[in-house]
Amino acid sequence: MFSQRIEGLRPSPIRSILAVIDRPGMVSFAGGLPATDALPRWSGDVEPEVLQYGPTEGEPRLRAAVAEHLRTLGVDAPADRVLILSGSQQGIDLAAKLVVDPGTPVAVESPTYLAALQVFRFYGARFVDLPASAPLTYLVPTFGNPTGACMSDTDRDEIAARVRADDTVLFEDDPYRDLVYEPGDRTPIVARMHGGSWIYQGSFSKTFAPGLRLGFLAASEDLFARLVMIKQATDLHTSRLSQHIVLDAISGPDWPDRLDRLADFYRDRRDTFDAALHRHLGDLATWETPKGGLFFWLTLDRRVDTRPLLDQAIARNVAFMPGEEFFPDGTGVGTMRLNFSHATGDDVDRGLSTLAELIREQR
Amino acid sequence: MFSQRIEGLRPSPIRSILAVIDRPGMVSFAGGLPATDALPRWSGDVEPEVLQYGPTEGEPRLRAAVAEHLRTLGVDAPADRVLILSGSQQGIDLAAKLVVDPGTPVAVESPTYLAALQVFRFYGARFVDLPASAPLTYLVPTFGNPTGACMSDTDRDEIAARVRADDTVLFEDDPYRDLVYEPGDRTPIVARMHGGSWIYQGSFSKTFAPGLRLGFLAASEDLFARLVMIKQATDLHTSRLSQHIVLDAISGPDWPDRLDRLADFYRDRRDTFDAALHRHLGDLATWETPKGGLFFWLTLDRRVDTRPLLDQAIARNVAFMPGEEFFPDGTGVGTMRLNFSHATGDDVDRGLSTLAELIREQR
Repeated sequence: MFSQRIEGLRPSPIRSILAVIDRPGMVSFAGGLPATDALPRWSGDVEPEVLQYGPTEGEPRLRAAVAEHLRTLGVDAPADRVLILSGSQQGIDLAAKLVVDPGTPVAVESPTYLAALQVFRFYGARFVDLPASAPLTYLVPTFGNPTGACMSDTDRDEIAARVRADDTVLFEDDPYRDLVYEPGDRTPIVARMHGGSWIYQGSFSKTFAPGLRLGFLAASEDLFARLVMIKQATDLHTSRLSQHIVLDAISGPDWPDRLDRLADFYRDRRDTFDAALHRHLGDLATWETPKGGLFFWLTLDRRVDTRPLLDQAIARNVAFMPGEEFFPDGTGVGTMRLNFSHATGDDVDRGLSTLAELIREQR
Repeated sequence: MFSQRIEGLRPSPIRSILAVIDRPGMVSFAGGLPATDALPRWSGDVEPEVLQYGPTEGEPRLRAAVAEHLRTLGVDAPADRVLILSGSQQGIDLAAKLVVDPGTPVAVESPTYLAALQVFRFYGARFVDLPASAPLTYLVPTFGNPTGACMSDTDRDEIAARVRADDTVLFEDDPYRDLVYEPGDRTPIVARMHGGSWIYQGSFSKTFAPGLRLGFLAASEDLFARLVMIKQATDLHTSRLSQHIVLDAISGPDWPDRLDRLADFYRDRRDTFDAALHRHLGDLATWETPKGGLFFWLTLDRRVDTRPLLDQAIARNVAFMPGEEFFPDGTGVGTMRLNFSHATGDDVDRGLSTLAELIREQR
């Protein structure tokens, strides 16, 4: 199940010692900790310990808050199987380090998240299309990037059953869950597995602030301790200040309201964008209105490669993502991913009308 | 020169687009950026952009400040060859990804920084002792961890010349440079290379605050762009808030004074610890008083393995680092690393007298 490099993985004796040095009465000459007295004075309302080295797993109170959130989703992960990440991109790197050797098959949706393809490819993965079986299955089933699609209940159950039957690892990447615009069941796949080997990850980049680089993962018992050791070797631990700020935000009484307002805000943007798409590209492409997330996924009626189109679009001051990049095998010609959350007002019309012109010019 | 996995490395088209979307008049449907209006309101004095996704390389003003600092050290690295890191542990992971395949020789000091050994070993490195030649040479020449030693001018020049002659990569890890207690030349080895392939890294963990996880690297032109792509795949970019806070600190008029005060503070701690060491372990071990950094390195007169000693020490409420762990080949029996910056006052005496007792019991 594990990559060859896992054989060389051992917990750091330093960090094993760090686990006991908080014991009352302990005199520690072990770490390389700066003296707490030598840390900068902090103007804000954060504890001084936020400036000191911290645990690899993350701040205990934040891990507990994430575990409570996971419990409401039906995911079996107590706080001691929650690992705080420096953004959820890091979780992909950790999972790849854990499982992927050169030639290891990784099953993915096609199209799927581009930066995940890049990481798995970097470690030598060979991609196979779902529903083929592989040692690692990676997917973004809920309002996924790039398609915005939400996987059906039936498909989720099938994947959960197959991964259990094959005894392979499921990696469910779930950063868009809370950007939801229409009701509908979206219980995580890992919550349907009732055992087996899995990693589930989420992010605070979409619901709070990407600039703080904060995400989390939870994992089954057979994987968790190794993921912590890999994280330790990767960056010791995640910024404690980022953890402190996010904990404050998600523990506050306003958090559920914030998520509701955020969904309302983005639902409006989506609807405005959908209407503009119909005006400008209604006769050139087809799409499904996404029920969550941040993207429209367009299939052009005429299958022109949109990659060369990008340079022309940028020359006319419009940027988009060619859809071809999201296919592990480079198929999927004639697709585009359009983000609807960033541009506003007249810019949306101007941008989409420019794209429509460019597509017509290709005909 | 590069690892096999570098063949699979391509810049993300998304992040290439991100480089142009700030252009005036650009309408972007490309990224997955949350709407700036949907980001949380910030109480402090930071720009709202600090909460948004940022460039992989780091904040331009922080990169410029680091470049200016490097210039004063004689390191040839303009701002566009400075990469901000999520702590300098990350730099080791990035360098290993760049160079180390299973079986790749890596030349290291013996003993050397334990967590670097762990990372290189994880990627399959085979360690060779300096001054043997290898595709990658890793060292901490200035007040190094664990020994606290400062490499001589002659040795630095020799290593610089050898790495140039062999056309291999030098990785100089330099987190303790500013914790200096005695005058003496410590010009970086990379500043003596006048060309060639190199990575130089520093940290704000010792001079400012480890909890923010902020470091930096600079590299020669042949390595830099690849390191940026690897960083991008690893965690997109480093916390912008951490970058903002550190930039504020190091740009302020108080920064040089802070470094002086810090050195004074730690020099006192070192002297107190040195005196206590003479009282308790003067007849049991030998050591050099370190001219910088955070550690004393002890060689016991009787070469007892200090690893089993650790459990006994912890049972008596004293923690230290067995020196054996810092040797790539497990030699170096009868050594200890003692941090002098954390424990204070009576605790130092109590801890060292306990260690002395334990060592005597082994005889």
